[in-house]
Amino acid sequence: MTTETKTLAGHPFDRGLFESLVKRRLFFTEAFEIYRTSGALGGDGRGLFDYGPPGCALQSNIVDAWRRHFVLEENMLELDCTIMTPEAVFKTSGHVDKFEDWMCKDSKSGDFLRADHLIENVLEARLKGDRIARGLGISSDDSSKPVDAKKQKRKVKDIQAVKLPDQEVAEYEEILAKIDNYNGTELGELISRLDIRNPDGNNPVSPPTPFNLMFKTTLGPSSASPAYLRPETAQGQFLNFKKLSDYNQNLMPFASASIGKSFRNEISPRSGLLRVREFLMAEIEHFVDPEGGKKHPRFHEVQHISLSLLNRSVQLSGSSDLQAMTIGDAVAEGIIDNETLGYFLARIYLFLLRIGVDKTKLRFRQHMANEMAHYAADCWDAELLTSYGWIECVGCADRSAYDLTVHSRRTGEPLVVREPRAEPLRVEEWQMDINRAKFGPTFRKDAKAVEAALNSLSQSERENLSGSLDQQGFITLQVPGMVDGSVKVPRDLITLEKRTRVENTREYTPNVIEPSFGIGRILYSLLEHVYWHRPDDVARGVLSLPLSVAATKLLIVPLSNQPRFIPVIQTVSQRLRELGISCRVDNSSASIGKRYSRNDELGIPLGITIDFDTLKDDTITLRERDSTKQVRASQSDIVDAIKSLVDGKESWGNVFNRLPEFVGQSGDL
Amino acid sequence: MTTETKTLAGHPFDRGLFESLVKRRLFFTEAFEIYRTSGALGGDGRGLFDYGPPGCALQSNIVDAWRRHFVLEENMLELDCTIMTPEAVFKTSGHVDKFEDWMCKDSKSGDFLRADHLIENVLEARLKGDRIARGLGISSDDSSKPVDAKKQKRKVKDIQAVKLPDQEVAEYEEILAKIDNYNGTELGELISRLDIRNPDGNNPVSPPTPFNLMFKTTLGPSSASPAYLRPETAQGQFLNFKKLSDYNQNLMPFASASIGKSFRNEISPRSGLLRVREFLMAEIEHFVDPEGGKKHPRFHEVQHISLSLLNRSVQLSGSSDLQAMTIGDAVAEGIIDNETLGYFLARIYLFLLRIGVDKTKLRFRQHMANEMAHYAADCWDAELLTSYGWIECVGCADRSAYDLTVHSRRTGEPLVVREPRAEPLRVEEWQMDINRAKFGPTFRKDAKAVEAALNSLSQSERENLSGSLDQQGFITLQVPGMVDGSVKVPRDLITLEKRTRVENTREYTPNVIEPSFGIGRILYSLLEHVYWHRPDDVARGVLSLPLSVAATKLLIVPLSNQPRFIPVIQTVSQRLRELGISCRVDNSSASIGKRYSRNDELGIPLGITIDFDTLKDDTITLRERDSTKQVRASQSDIVDAIKSLVDGKESWGNVFNRLPEFVGQSGDL
Repeated sequence: MTTETKTLAGHPFDRGLFESLVKRRLFFTEAFEIYRTSGALGGDGRGLFDYGPPGCALQSNIVDAWRRHFVLEENMLELDCTIMTPEAVFKTSGHVDKFEDWMCKDSKSGDFLRADHLIENVLEARLKGDRIARGLGISSDDSSKPVDAKKQKRKVKDIQAVKLPDQEVAEYEEILAKIDNYNGTELGELISRLDIRNPDGNNPVSPPTPFNLMFKTTLGPSSASPAYLRPETAQGQFLNFKKLSDYNQNLMPFASASIGKSFRNEISPRSGLLRVREFLMAEIEHFVDPEGGKKHPRFHEVQHISLSLLNRSVQLSGSSDLQAMTIGDAVAEGIIDNETLGYFLARIYLFLLRIGVDKTKLRFRQHMANEMAHYAADCWDAELLTSYGWIECVGCADRSAYDLTVHSRRTGEPLVVREPRAEPLRVEEWQMDINRAKFGPTFRKDAKAVEAALNSLSQSERENLSGSLDQQGFITLQVPGMVDGSVKVPRDLITLEKRTRVENTREYTPNVIEPSFGIGRILYSLLEHVYWHRPDDVARGVLSLPLSVAATKLLIVPLSNQPRFIPVIQTVSQRLRELGISCRVDNSSASIGKRYSRNDELGIPLGITIDFDTLKDDTITLRERDSTKQVRASQSDIVDAIKSLVDGKESWGNVFNRLPEFVGQSGDL
Repeated sequence: MTTETKTLAGHPFDRGLFESLVKRRLFFTEAFEIYRTSGALGGDGRGLFDYGPPGCALQSNIVDAWRRHFVLEENMLELDCTIMTPEAVFKTSGHVDKFEDWMCKDSKSGDFLRADHLIENVLEARLKGDRIARGLGISSDDSSKPVDAKKQKRKVKDIQAVKLPDQEVAEYEEILAKIDNYNGTELGELISRLDIRNPDGNNPVSPPTPFNLMFKTTLGPSSASPAYLRPETAQGQFLNFKKLSDYNQNLMPFASASIGKSFRNEISPRSGLLRVREFLMAEIEHFVDPEGGKKHPRFHEVQHISLSLLNRSVQLSGSSDLQAMTIGDAVAEGIIDNETLGYFLARIYLFLLRIGVDKTKLRFRQHMANEMAHYAADCWDAELLTSYGWIECVGCADRSAYDLTVHSRRTGEPLVVREPRAEPLRVEEWQMDINRAKFGPTFRKDAKAVEAALNSLSQSERENLSGSLDQQGFITLQVPGMVDGSVKVPRDLITLEKRTRVENTREYTPNVIEPSFGIGRILYSLLEHVYWHRPDDVARGVLSLPLSVAATKLLIVPLSNQPRFIPVIQTVSQRLRELGISCRVDNSSASIGKRYSRNDELGIPLGITIDFDTLKDDTITLRERDSTKQVRASQSDIVDAIKSLVDGKESWGNVFNRLPEFVGQSGDL
């Protein structure tokens, strides 16, 4: 289904035109396409994509921008951990038991469908049919009568114009608003009550069963070592927590970061790059003291920033209305739980704008209770609006102390922070001393068990027993595992006293705030956001990638491929290369206009033309992609202008105003 | 086993000291260590490593250097293809059937061992025992008598001083020189003849069986879609050949390149980072016309470069002697097959030197026939000498037209290059015309089979049959699948004539030269090459990483963490950041000497000290890591010197000569 969005130029976004451009320019392509199209693939190879040269370069620039914006700016500790992970780790983290989606099976074709997506698709189709029917004036009384007899014969996934009763429309809309909040039983109930069937063939489907989304394999030749491909980079960062904390000289807070591939075995991938089985993630684990409200020292730098929020309670009321609010207010009002979470939401916002995301197509949505991953205490997603609807591109979860706690419990390794206390903590408590010279000989082989039973006594038990010891001269103690179940411990073997213990060190398990970026989804949504076409010609597409993420900053276009242009091309390329500006030369035989059009499709922001006048007076023209305007000046002036544009020190508007416009010989068709 | 190598300072390389340094500074670490050490891992989690902050940054700088040296310098088309690959692709490429190692099973413990490594370990241990025995003057007559009775009780993997007969020593040495050339049967024969047992327990082992090294998993919920994790990035590049060729406007030669993780399920990983199950690869597929001797247009730029070569025939003679030879001579003499292969060997050499590899620890070894991968026509490895011996770090294979041919055959997609011929090619041939108006009605349901039989006639058959047709008025044709096996085809149904066909287009399948880099192995070997310790103190380690790959270029060290130093620190950091030079501030409370030692272990090449004199006269000192020498000058002069050092425009020697030396207050202990 296509959501209607507008391009930067205000035209309706046409996914067909857009896809044809990104495919033609090899931004990305389905993997193993020659196997699929020839029927040689066999089985299910969906949800896997390759990036071609411009897509690969764009991805690499987004990753660079990310590294500069987060890792370098905040001195994060970057790690590169393995994808392959033994089962024990994901057993502890909960992924083996809980990282799953609900799946239905088509009773006849045997196809597998993701339950929530199935319900969404069917209800959205019914609502669309209802809107068409209302537009056509069909009443719900004759709802069984299709608009077009021919259409009825087509598969039900094509929309049928059928008017629904008003309360049914309201119910469907409410279900869709909270579709992410249903568990398996609830999804099953919806499927049976609303008679949801597989749109492809109209067969009924089985009740939902859970399907684990991790890819499983085996380490080494023996089958005794099951392993999984990580579904997120996070666990590797948690397992290294102690080493990272030492490396950071035990200062808090600090963050680790990781960029790498993760894998999820999607039940039924669709929507191109948006739902894939292998994807590049960039994740931050920010470790913070849970006490003191998770303040952030740089919160003041971002508190004025206003975001579009969609919080949990609004969604549960069945609405999707956005609320513009500053980060400062949202934290103050408790809509966003704490400063650290708020700080990262703002930093995510700034990052997305920096790489060229359209801010009118960006919102932050809070997860509903059932929707959250099993480890999360709170979670907000940065969602980007695309022709597929709002897409989760960045998750920002508060994982609390969950992961460090479970791994520490499983391995016995203390994953904690120890800090000297400013003021020593004084604890009044009942302490016990054992007279070892007599204790061992008295209890012999049971000595260990008796000592363990003594040590496990609570403070109140100690207080009570202290009375017995004083009055009776012994205590009676239950000892698990001993033949007679209890022993008497006389006064000469132990002492019980109330004393003061002074704690100079505080020990705690840090909480984790985790901003987690799906680079492929961001890249795809960004491409949709920056795509438009010239007003006069839908075939002349443009990708308005900002200079900072455009793979190639500049194209050099000689008027023709005559040898006399070569020396100038070499001088200019050389000067630009020395300034660190990536450029390409297009001296193919196509017309200048054609070459610039190709260039616009690749999203190259600047172009310079070298023509016969260049050979006479050393002037060259500089063209800006979006406006197609050109200026003409000496080689030095143009190179300087390019440098200040690339460095972000000057806008094109400025350059255009201060250098002479060139109109004599338009580079465009 | 440790090979004895020397550090840059001429001391024996001590792996224990080295490993302690890289571990302490978190360059890399075993993955899931807290699970392994606590016994919670279960099963086999070996061969998996995580990179900590300095290792991750070094890896990223090596990858950057690689991208600049190869991809940008030669305009290669970079791709990012999926790791996950459906079985059909690797079935075609031959990996499902042939990508395997030979494995033995310990008859008692059940441990799996890689057969060639087992033989190597045992024979090397016997040879070492022989050398000790000879040194101790033990004759081969009393070879059963151990040097030390206590040692005999220890496991046989400890060396026993046992003298061997001379011809046995010679035989073992010959086997080791060609260990990579044995097939499974031959390995089995050696194991039984030489009584090779598992050194860990001395149990006999099973005969070798093949074990496929690819990790297997399943795509989607159905079990009908087996898939593998790629063991190399190459196949994704081959499958996209047609699109890449179009993107490159069908110009030849051209290269694609890919950087990404690959996976091999090693039977029994060891040797730390050198034999791992998950690793970063950087691969180039250079597509070249197989005709004309695979010339390379830039060969003249590298032909004077001299490499240390170990070719196939020298190894088969049982020797490991290196031969220094220029690339030009090696290609001229046919030792290296062609210019393109030679060009890449030289470019690999230059790359390795650029990132800091010790050129006295670098050799190029040609693969022996049985050692080559199933797809390779010829192959040379760049090997680096480490304490584990010579390690294959880069492979440079001529894969001929193997991959494109098999994928094209399987999918029916023509993976070829079509070029206009400078001179049209004229081919004299027997052509056949069918009179369709009569042919169909004559043969009816058999018409297709008869036509296929006609079309499959060879040129010489056509020539013969042309005679029959003229003389008898018909031909007799065998038609497979027809009831009576043959038909008569009369003259009025077909014409056979010798005619001239003109071919204006040449079509060919390109050959592939593939330089393939194991980034982890290069990184590890590089760290061994640049590691040394100060002559006066083995505990003061240094990593002499070159400026170009060092993660942090410069450390700023204020004399103390007094607030009065902060403004200068900020000015200097700001100026360096504007010049794009990465620096860190160490204002911890440790002494300046201690801080510089820590810095030396991280391999940071430069350091500046800010002291009380700086506050008076704005001078600062600049320290060079390897020499520990310092110069002192104004802030501006020092910043300029840093810039010219980082840009590679000036050597430290030069800076040291032109700026005043600082000795007053040594920064070192």
